[in-house]
Amino acid sequence: MSLRDHGDPDGAPSAPPPLRPPTSSARPSAAEQARTIAAATNAATLASLTPEGDPWASLVVYGLLGGAPVLCVSNLAEHGRNLAADPRASLSIVAGAARSDPLAGARITLAGTVAHPLADHRDRARAAYLNAVPEARHYVDFTDFTLWVFNVHRVRWVGGYGRMDSATGEEYAAASPDPVAPAAPRALAHLNADHSDALTAMARAFGGYPDADAAVCTGIDRYGLDLRVHTPRGVAYARVGFPEPLQSAGQLRSATASLARNADRSG
Amino acid sequence: MSLRDHGDPDGAPSAPPPLRPPTSSARPSAAEQARTIAAATNAATLASLTPEGDPWASLVVYGLLGGAPVLCVSNLAEHGRNLAADPRASLSIVAGAARSDPLAGARITLAGTVAHPLADHRDRARAAYLNAVPEARHYVDFTDFTLWVFNVHRVRWVGGYGRMDSATGEEYAAASPDPVAPAAPRALAHLNADHSDALTAMARAFGGYPDADAAVCTGIDRYGLDLRVHTPRGVAYARVGFPEPLQSAGQLRSATASLARNADRSG
Repeated sequence: MSLRDHGDPDGAPSAPPPLRPPTSSARPSAAEQARTIAAATNAATLASLTPEGDPWASLVVYGLLGGAPVLCVSNLAEHGRNLAADPRASLSIVAGAARSDPLAGARITLAGTVAHPLADHRDRARAAYLNAVPEARHYVDFTDFTLWVFNVHRVRWVGGYGRMDSATGEEYAAASPDPVAPAAPRALAHLNADHSDALTAMARAFGGYPDADAAVCTGIDRYGLDLRVHTPRGVAYARVGFPEPLQSAGQLRSATASLARNADRSG
Repeated sequence: MSLRDHGDPDGAPSAPPPLRPPTSSARPSAAEQARTIAAATNAATLASLTPEGDPWASLVVYGLLGGAPVLCVSNLAEHGRNLAADPRASLSIVAGAARSDPLAGARITLAGTVAHPLADHRDRARAAYLNAVPEARHYVDFTDFTLWVFNVHRVRWVGGYGRMDSATGEEYAAASPDPVAPAAPRALAHLNADHSDALTAMARAFGGYPDADAAVCTGIDRYGLDLRVHTPRGVAYARVGFPEPLQSAGQLRSATASLARNADRSG
């Protein structure tokens, strides 16, 4: 039995295609997804190398200097000794809360090397670490702790089942975290609770599904909304883009209201 | 400034010592703590080695065959290719929910090698994986997924700040998860909400603090209770042991009630 084409995990029929192209299908890049996930938490798992070259996985906390994770670990701990002897390292960061099916959630792997930050760079790294890890004020200046900046050489993003992509260290450094992400969960809940008619109108006008009879918002980012759409042909997944990428969470309310108004007019 | 003796992180005075030895100070071993943490979840971070021998950290889910984690990963994924080329691996597993200070929580590192389970062993590994990861029914038998059993060679347990210990693979294999762990959070909340007088009596009678005037339960395991005790001399940490290690969660209620009765009698 060869099953390399996995298809839908529940064996459901394929989703019906859009009846016309969506107005915009812009989405965050892998580098942007990675920057957004890295900015959303302060806990990661570090993979370092033992003196024998064996892998060693351990919990760490981190701050961010630009997109570069800043670590501060004890030289007495195994991972601290590992990094001091071999700078090669990798970090796994998981987005959001634990869920019943962890593989359905988004996560990233960063691979690269750690280095001692010097002079001004050290002060900024220390401040970035303390900003993300307030408890570190108790140990950041202990002589047996070392501050490390993680230079990201390459990035792997996995968005869930079947959604994945890679990015270079340069793309990761040049990208920015999604400014909308901190406000997205509340906005999503509000749209689904109070504006389901507007979501359906958006799916019809802009998402390529003029036959939509219901829609639920499943994600919001700077480029637009993800919708799960009910149609007489079956359940589909639509993308509704903002006319311009949003620059701040404060623009989210007016941008979605504007989409709703324009969808209503064209309906 | 040399600060290797970190002392109390908040610079508070040291906790007052017990006025007499506690009745029992038995605690779970590092191997038992590790087995308990491994049994409490199904998500871990795998550290594997790339073809260049670099570390690679990635999210995985696992089942348990005895204490041995069972993985099932795609050969198309980077960590799957890594394991196929080099069996050396490490797993980091973090106990409980995300918290504001992740380093205050318990976690383990397992280090060892992965191997293909053969014959009957494969069926048991597959069943263990499916038991812990029900969603895997969609992919466990795909030809591009490989089932791996992780042979644990050594174990590092960190219980939080300043609490840590190591165990061998043999100790880990011989230990058992704490049978009380699944029931402990609810029992702890109940004791603190409704039986604070009984906790204080236990601290006085069995914990070595006859001058306790209040006590809060901060942990429960098969060997006993951890208490944070208020005394006129300051805040202290006491251990109150069960007369015998508990064999099941069902014994927890009667064991704590018995401790409370005996403490009352001796008070």
